[in-house]
Amino acid sequence: MSIKKILSGLASSRDSREALYKHFHRHPELSLQEHATAARIEEELRSGGIDEVLRVGATGVVAILRNGDGPVVAMRGDIDALPMAERSGKDYAAVGATQTDEASGRETPVAHTCGHDVHIVCLLDATKALHAHRDAWSGTFVAVFQPGEENAAGAKAMVAAGIVDKVPKPDVYLGQHVLGSLPGGAVGIRSGPLFSAAASIEITLHGKGSHGSMPNLGVDPIVLGAAVVTRLQTIVAREVAPKETAVVTVGSFHAGTKSNIIPDSAILQLNTRAFDRDVERHLHEAIERIVRAECEAARCPRPPEFRYYDRYPLTSNHDAPTARVRAAFQDWFGDGAVDMGPVPASEDFSIIPDAFGCPYTYWGLGGFADWKNAPGNHSPFFAPDLQPTLDRGVEAIVVAASPWLVADRQ
Amino acid sequence: MSIKKILSGLASSRDSREALYKHFHRHPELSLQEHATAARIEEELRSGGIDEVLRVGATGVVAILRNGDGPVVAMRGDIDALPMAERSGKDYAAVGATQTDEASGRETPVAHTCGHDVHIVCLLDATKALHAHRDAWSGTFVAVFQPGEENAAGAKAMVAAGIVDKVPKPDVYLGQHVLGSLPGGAVGIRSGPLFSAAASIEITLHGKGSHGSMPNLGVDPIVLGAAVVTRLQTIVAREVAPKETAVVTVGSFHAGTKSNIIPDSAILQLNTRAFDRDVERHLHEAIERIVRAECEAARCPRPPEFRYYDRYPLTSNHDAPTARVRAAFQDWFGDGAVDMGPVPASEDFSIIPDAFGCPYTYWGLGGFADWKNAPGNHSPFFAPDLQPTLDRGVEAIVVAASPWLVADRQ
Amino acid sequence: MSIKKILSGLASSRDSREALYKHFHRHPELSLQEHATAARIEEELRSGGIDEVLRVGATGVVAILRNGDGPVVAMRGDIDALPMAERSGKDYAAVGATQTDEASGRETPVAHTCGHDVHIVCLLDATKALHAHRDAWSGTFVAVFQPGEENAAGAKAMVAAGIVDKVPKPDVYLGQHVLGSLPGGAVGIRSGPLFSAAASIEITLHGKGSHGSMPNLGVDPIVLGAAVVTRLQTIVAREVAPKETAVVTVGSFHAGTKSNIIPDSAILQLNTRAFDRDVERHLHEAIERIVRAECEAARCPRPPEFRYYDRYPLTSNHDAPTARVRAAFQDWFGDGAVDMGPVPASEDFSIIPDAFGCPYTYWGLGGFADWKNAPGNHSPFFAPDLQPTLDRGVEAIVVAASPWLVADRQ
Amino acid sequence: MSIKKILSGLASSRDSREALYKHFHRHPELSLQEHATAARIEEELRSGGIDEVLRVGATGVVAILRNGDGPVVAMRGDIDALPMAERSGKDYAAVGATQTDEASGRETPVAHTCGHDVHIVCLLDATKALHAHRDAWSGTFVAVFQPGEENAAGAKAMVAAGIVDKVPKPDVYLGQHVLGSLPGGAVGIRSGPLFSAAASIEITLHGKGSHGSMPNLGVDPIVLGAAVVTRLQTIVAREVAPKETAVVTVGSFHAGTKSNIIPDSAILQLNTRAFDRDVERHLHEAIERIVRAECEAARCPRPPEFRYYDRYPLTSNHDAPTARVRAAFQDWFGDGAVDMGPVPASEDFSIIPDAFGCPYTYWGLGGFADWKNAPGNHSPFFAPDLQPTLDRGVEAIVVAASPWLVADRQ
Repeated sequence: MSIKKILSGLASSRDSREALYKHFHRHPELSLQEHATAARIEEELRSGGIDEVLRVGATGVVAILRNGDGPVVAMRGDIDALPMAERSGKDYAAVGATQTDEASGRETPVAHTCGHDVHIVCLLDATKALHAHRDAWSGTFVAVFQPGEENAAGAKAMVAAGIVDKVPKPDVYLGQHVLGSLPGGAVGIRSGPLFSAAASIEITLHGKGSHGSMPNLGVDPIVLGAAVVTRLQTIVAREVAPKETAVVTVGSFHAGTKSNIIPDSAILQLNTRAFDRDVERHLHEAIERIVRAECEAARCPRPPEFRYYDRYPLTSNHDAPTARVRAAFQDWFGDGAVDMGPVPASEDFSIIPDAFGCPYTYWGLGGFADWKNAPGNHSPFFAPDLQPTLDRGVEAIVVAASPWLVADRQ
Repeated sequence: MSIKKILSGLASSRDSREALYKHFHRHPELSLQEHATAARIEEELRSGGIDEVLRVGATGVVAILRNGDGPVVAMRGDIDALPMAERSGKDYAAVGATQTDEASGRETPVAHTCGHDVHIVCLLDATKALHAHRDAWSGTFVAVFQPGEENAAGAKAMVAAGIVDKVPKPDVYLGQHVLGSLPGGAVGIRSGPLFSAAASIEITLHGKGSHGSMPNLGVDPIVLGAAVVTRLQTIVAREVAPKETAVVTVGSFHAGTKSNIIPDSAILQLNTRAFDRDVERHLHEAIERIVRAECEAARCPRPPEFRYYDRYPLTSNHDAPTARVRAAFQDWFGDGAVDMGPVPASEDFSIIPDAFGCPYTYWGLGGFADWKNAPGNHSPFFAPDLQPTLDRGVEAIVVAASPWLVADRQ
Repeated sequence: MSIKKILSGLASSRDSREALYKHFHRHPELSLQEHATAARIEEELRSGGIDEVLRVGATGVVAILRNGDGPVVAMRGDIDALPMAERSGKDYAAVGATQTDEASGRETPVAHTCGHDVHIVCLLDATKALHAHRDAWSGTFVAVFQPGEENAAGAKAMVAAGIVDKVPKPDVYLGQHVLGSLPGGAVGIRSGPLFSAAASIEITLHGKGSHGSMPNLGVDPIVLGAAVVTRLQTIVAREVAPKETAVVTVGSFHAGTKSNIIPDSAILQLNTRAFDRDVERHLHEAIERIVRAECEAARCPRPPEFRYYDRYPLTSNHDAPTARVRAAFQDWFGDGAVDMGPVPASEDFSIIPDAFGCPYTYWGLGGFADWKNAPGNHSPFFAPDLQPTLDRGVEAIVVAASPWLVADRQ
Repeated sequence: MSIKKILSGLASSRDSREALYKHFHRHPELSLQEHATAARIEEELRSGGIDEVLRVGATGVVAILRNGDGPVVAMRGDIDALPMAERSGKDYAAVGATQTDEASGRETPVAHTCGHDVHIVCLLDATKALHAHRDAWSGTFVAVFQPGEENAAGAKAMVAAGIVDKVPKPDVYLGQHVLGSLPGGAVGIRSGPLFSAAASIEITLHGKGSHGSMPNLGVDPIVLGAAVVTRLQTIVAREVAPKETAVVTVGSFHAGTKSNIIPDSAILQLNTRAFDRDVERHLHEAIERIVRAECEAARCPRPPEFRYYDRYPLTSNHDAPTARVRAAFQDWFGDGAVDMGPVPASEDFSIIPDAFGCPYTYWGLGGFADWKNAPGNHSPFFAPDLQPTLDRGVEAIVVAASPWLVADRQ
């Protein structure tokens, strides 16, 4: 039983892997509308002889490989694309790809500019490899093809669709993401906070309209909004411990229609980031405290309203599985296994393991040889090198699962 | 020669005056689009036997009554309506009146909710009365039916169209406005500042966009805009002498599209009011000083931009003609002649007398018996009482002109 | 009976008046410590044959001239000096004058740089003139030599000492002040608000100390104080009607001892001015509202504290007596009687007439021929021209009282 | 040659070590006034047979052990105490210890509440141990007893006194500090930033005084100061990358004397902290940019003034020597060698190695068994456990030097 055996077909499967990747790359689909993608994933699994394949939610696909006694390892690959046009210039770029957004009814460009197509293909081929070499390991492997990561709704949808009841409870839940911030081909991991908790808050400030020449008859929501924005700066500057990483951004401020009419209200849209649940809680409490107090200072006729949306949980790798995966990476990849710092982005990855009540760990996969100049995720130019990215992504899954599934890890 | 004689037909003309008023009220027209209104004014003048009637600009109408030696008195009545729907409930309300805005091409409701129809009718009937009783006065009377007061463009348009060359230079230029802030039927006047100087300023603040989680890579124009709005409050609070009346209102603040994207720029729309030219100049200098400095504080990549629009001059009644008109009002109206305070509104009235280089004075005419509860000008409910408003408006013009034109003012 | 007769000795008394003025000028005394001043006033009155002289409080002196039937007119002259050194350069300057401040025990320079010595001498000589010509008027004249105007405590002290019970209730209460803001020798008066209501407020903001490198462990009272000062600007800029005159000044801000220690608290000292009681009430409510709300925004461990001190009431001349005095001034002084605007200073003058429940009026007396360059009251250079100031001040009192006391006012 | 041999006398020297520690603890001396301390250090060295002992500056002492070929290792121990009273309750507490501050001439309490007495004793005994066992190592050991750490002046003073010319250039410069934030007896180290760069800045804002009722005649430095303090919050909140640790504290704000006088100026005292030189530079540039711009916004008559003081450099351990010391610590102390995070305090330690142009590393020594409840450095209760602190501090020096000086490190 060995990793080597499981990965023995890595070279021979390379061409078909790249072809499949190009297919998904050219056929991106929006969050929770990944119908063709899910169908193709399912088809690939079944044509590879994998029978236990189920839908969890409309576009979530799960494959289960039951292989005797031993731990259950789940591996997640997210499958959705973004509503933007690709400008990578690759010959397999999704030029002209569009889809109708089911919510708005609008036709929109679509592109895999976050690299989820890498995640699909690597998880497919790692699953096939494990299936092909059942003699080299024991336990259960669960491949979770998760939809809707980009709108923070897909993991919740799979939980709502009963993944916890339909799938064996994992001993560990794994995930990976292709990134431009690591050396090409490297796998990076860290214990503790990896992706920030994020939330958006829409705040409505209720002033009182008046003619601009008679401010005393109104309550000026623009002066109030300015006071709010100004005072919010003290949260990061004074209330959060200097060593913590926290962000409070007011990304949008809209009030008024004319220079000489004091409007009735102002609407602010905020975004918060934190790498610690207590810090996030403090940010939100402080925002509400400050906004309410400023509304009192301004003698508002009505209290402010807060609407939270687009909430992402903190992704904070559990210590024990992270240590096991890090050791396995170091053994297998040597210098190709690196330390990774926290990333100021957010993920809905942790929602499913939290629903299971199981530990998780998540690693990064360097996708660009020229990584110092790599485009960021969500850039229209984001398109990772085909290799070693695709091979390494398959390897990383098998190696990461090996501490639980493989007795002889050489 | 006497005022009484000139006004001897006031009662007999009352019915036709009210009828004509209702006609104009039912047929309101937008600023500088007063084509039917101007045509009807011209028709009324000519049918009254007045020959020297000229257009000055497309919709400006001037009638000149030359009546022997003596001073030249000009009287202005503005003729345009507002782009809003009337809700007065009067049986002669302009229900359903609409017009296509030539600038936007949009159909818009229109209503005489600022009372300019009163001004038209009173000036028409005063002109006719003077024409009918040429033996009772001597000198020259000029009736100026001015378009486009509401968009501050009509007086400028008449100047541009050469009114100064086409009309005898007045010894005094008179104006009146029907108001809800004076007792019904009263005429109110004051020496010095009457209507504020006003200006609007659109300010574009150039920051630098960034992802909301990486504020250090951008220059946040919302935090900058908040600093600007906050700091602008110090102009009125600290820089303007406490006894002065000045207003700086930020009526509109727009920036950003999403909670987690720091936008590139913010756009503010300001309105200023002052009753003194030096104070207005200081307001504008202070606004520019503060905005520029805040942009430096914020390390903006480009300086801010300022666009001034909708500028109204200060309307400040000249002492000498005001004293003469006040005395004439007191003699004729007794307790019905009152003192008036400054009004926090603005007028383009003074532009024409300033172009002529002649003194001016302007009075208010109380339009509501229940004036304590009267709607403000520009309210959808604004519709003055027919009487004594229409009679008093005719009288006031004749009485105000009398110190120059009438030897025996009883 | 005539004003002329009462004032017939004006020229002959001039030398002794000037000499007495110089005496008081050279011997200034602090508020409520005017012991020698009060003694000399009493001595002057008694040596002039006036018998009904009483002390009201330690240093308040009242003389009552009862002269048959008729109204009671009271005239106030304030008598205290300021704790500062005179630098007028006059040969009668109070060079080196000092006094021990009874409160602090400190020796302090003293000077009549507010002109109260003019008030003393003019009131003394007007009283003497009325006493000398009892045949020219009838009624009762009450001369009130009031201490402690500069610390807002003297009028209250006379009320506390029972002036209302000891003195006949006046039909009118009069006052005058020598000023640099009127033409030399002119008397100026206005109906309505003359001197502002004023108050000082000491505000203690309770934060929570911390090391400067750990702001999250504290509540920064300096950031809080800055937010308070900034937000207070909106009261005058947005909450007070633009036409009102109101001032909110933070004159003192003290917090902290070292750069790297966040202090426990900050102390602000504010001063407010208003020419309307409702406006003053609004200022104070708004200040408290804003400060309390900012403390909530800052999560202060304790609410803020407010201590009001140095409160001066509004001095707002009553219409009826003002009209009578204005008419008398115009008759007597002709062009020397002028209109006066509101003065951004404060007085405790109104406290006594308010205690009596009687109307009052107060006028200004121009003290400088070169009034355009005159030093302000409380300037170390403030020293009015001897003449016509002293003569005119005597005249003004007699003329102002004449509508009540003198039948033939020529 | 071995560490063991060098440390073979650790137990037998324990009693005298503790006695010497108690002596220094009871005889604390202020920064740059450590005359008795330096004399005793010198005496201890010489009595231990160490001949090459020199003064560098008035109270800096350096001992040099030349022991054949090999690298030069310098170890620094700081020797000064703090101007405060100890309240540790230890029987060897410095109860009643005072000293005259040479700068102010004032008698002040003094105490070793930062643990520099531990540093002295451990460095003395490590030096003696190395001297006693010259056969166990080769190279040169330099013991630097540095005065004046607490006022950031002692390292500069030794550089000014020529330490670079008087002492062999080290291959590595070492330092240690007893702390309450590590487990008792543990040695903690980290590569990179360890102590923050710190600076204080006194800022004078020049406004223009005025009476509080006439703000328009002045430039209000309190409103300006409030704007500055408020705007400074945006540096940490928006300009510094969220992952960086930076602090801008305004610890003191002083302006004004009375509620109703607008003062001429305001004085702010700021303290900054950063763990990166570029970040510190950015903080200072941003502070100056914002303050200058706010002064322009306020139309200040003169630009602001900035005075920097109490500057501490960043202490950022060099990678290579840190890796060597960490490895040596792990080998020798096992679990007693721990990782350490950045400390929000500052040190002048790096000034001397920077003057030499040599790399350095610095570690922490846990001083309290009950470290979770240990008082912070500079607390009046700070007094480390005698043991294992004193023994471990000697060991740590020898072990840390061993990679350079000792061939067989067992």
